[in-house]
Amino acid sequence: MSEQLSPHALRANIRSGQHTDNTSGCATGYVQCNIVILPSDWANDFLRFCQLNPKPCPLIATSNKPGDFSLTPLGDIDIRTDVPSYRVFRGGQLTEEITDITSLWRDDLVTFALGCSFSFEEALLADGLEVRNVSDGVNVPMYRTNIDCTSAGPFAGKMVVSMRPFKAADAIRAVQICTRFPSVHGAPIHFGDPSQIGIGDLGRPDYGDAVELRDEEVPVFWACGVTPQVALEAAKPPFAITHSPGCMLVTDLRNSQLAIM
Amino acid sequence: MSEQLSPHALRANIRSGQHTDNTSGCATGYVQCNIVILPSDWANDFLRFCQLNPKPCPLIATSNKPGDFSLTPLGDIDIRTDVPSYRVFRGGQLTEEITDITSLWRDDLVTFALGCSFSFEEALLADGLEVRNVSDGVNVPMYRTNIDCTSAGPFAGKMVVSMRPFKAADAIRAVQICTRFPSVHGAPIHFGDPSQIGIGDLGRPDYGDAVELRDEEVPVFWACGVTPQVALEAAKPPFAITHSPGCMLVTDLRNSQLAIM
Repeated sequence: MSEQLSPHALRANIRSGQHTDNTSGCATGYVQCNIVILPSDWANDFLRFCQLNPKPCPLIATSNKPGDFSLTPLGDIDIRTDVPSYRVFRGGQLTEEITDITSLWRDDLVTFALGCSFSFEEALLADGLEVRNVSDGVNVPMYRTNIDCTSAGPFAGKMVVSMRPFKAADAIRAVQICTRFPSVHGAPIHFGDPSQIGIGDLGRPDYGDAVELRDEEVPVFWACGVTPQVALEAAKPPFAITHSPGCMLVTDLRNSQLAIM
Repeated sequence: MSEQLSPHALRANIRSGQHTDNTSGCATGYVQCNIVILPSDWANDFLRFCQLNPKPCPLIATSNKPGDFSLTPLGDIDIRTDVPSYRVFRGGQLTEEITDITSLWRDDLVTFALGCSFSFEEALLADGLEVRNVSDGVNVPMYRTNIDCTSAGPFAGKMVVSMRPFKAADAIRAVQICTRFPSVHGAPIHFGDPSQIGIGDLGRPDYGDAVELRDEEVPVFWACGVTPQVALEAAKPPFAITHSPGCMLVTDLRNSQLAIM
């Protein structure tokens, strides 16, 4: 039913606590974002980390100033209530999973909204390609690679990638389609032999669910939004908030508006 | 030395018979074209063949009308003299290889100028990619595939592809670069397992020279301008003229002007 809701109406349901679940398939056509919230004395390094690693950490919007809980470029958003579920980290440890962070809000917090693969998956599907994790109704398989991100202060780590199998001609088409969307991870970073980027066994993803690789298909790998979360966990800031996996911020921005051409 | 010449000056040397050799590396930055010349009663089917198979047969220009030996969109060209070497076919058989076709010209002949891989190879090199056949100074390896072209009248046949080896990340970049140039074969049509497109042995190309496939590289395949030549040989028109392999029409059009963005 929530597929039919506008982003504004969906956020109203999330804000009121009626929708606390994941947002996959909701408000089709609109950009959903990964959320990271940090104290301002950690925000500058995280911003630099995103700018230095734009493929895994494509920054779509940030707060206008510390303490501001709106995200005006993305809609009439109150970031304290408009994400279905939040994870709270203290010293790098997950301490709470909650649906409202109003009571935790501080005047030094800075919000980062990062692009998410839902946008490019929609573009792939619209072009007639089969996206295996969508067909199978599972989470996309994700893997830690041996590719170092460029570090910024305490933020560092290996790149995490998501994998979708395609036949070669469809993989070429996927490169073309995703190139149009640099702010949602852009073109794939690798295809073919997983060991070349340090992945041992495609059948055992580090996050998400394994999917079948069929005859004549090659695995195609995209930089993944779990990368900043891993960097965040490693950096261990005293306080941080993120969305819960799959429970994204739904924005008023259309996916098509992210296309650079 | 001819690298330094403008297309106009190079064509003057070709016209006067001073330059009768291949044009690889000449007039860098300018579009070179495959040439097919046919009687007007065969021209319509060949035009349709090109339109139906734009990746192997990307049409850049045709004569304004039958018998017209200029190609105004491409420069001050006399197609009877401005190609370094021509092949004349009668009933599908190669009968002559000559440097001037003025004595053979007829008022029913129609010229077709098709895009050539030199243009996208230049774009790949300009981006810092290594193009193996260029590094090795050999002809690109080309293979007949099991992919049927869409037929048009007597013109039909399998697609011929050229192959260049790249590491995966460079192959992805090559897709992005070549997508900008649809009129010079555009994006690759396949990568990886050659047998999927009916190629038995990469070490034994049907045309051109084999190149080494190094560690971690995958073969990347582009639709190739030899395809229309094969279709032409199969159609066996009573009379046809083409350029000799590697001896292209050098035009005043810049490669960059072919970029769609």
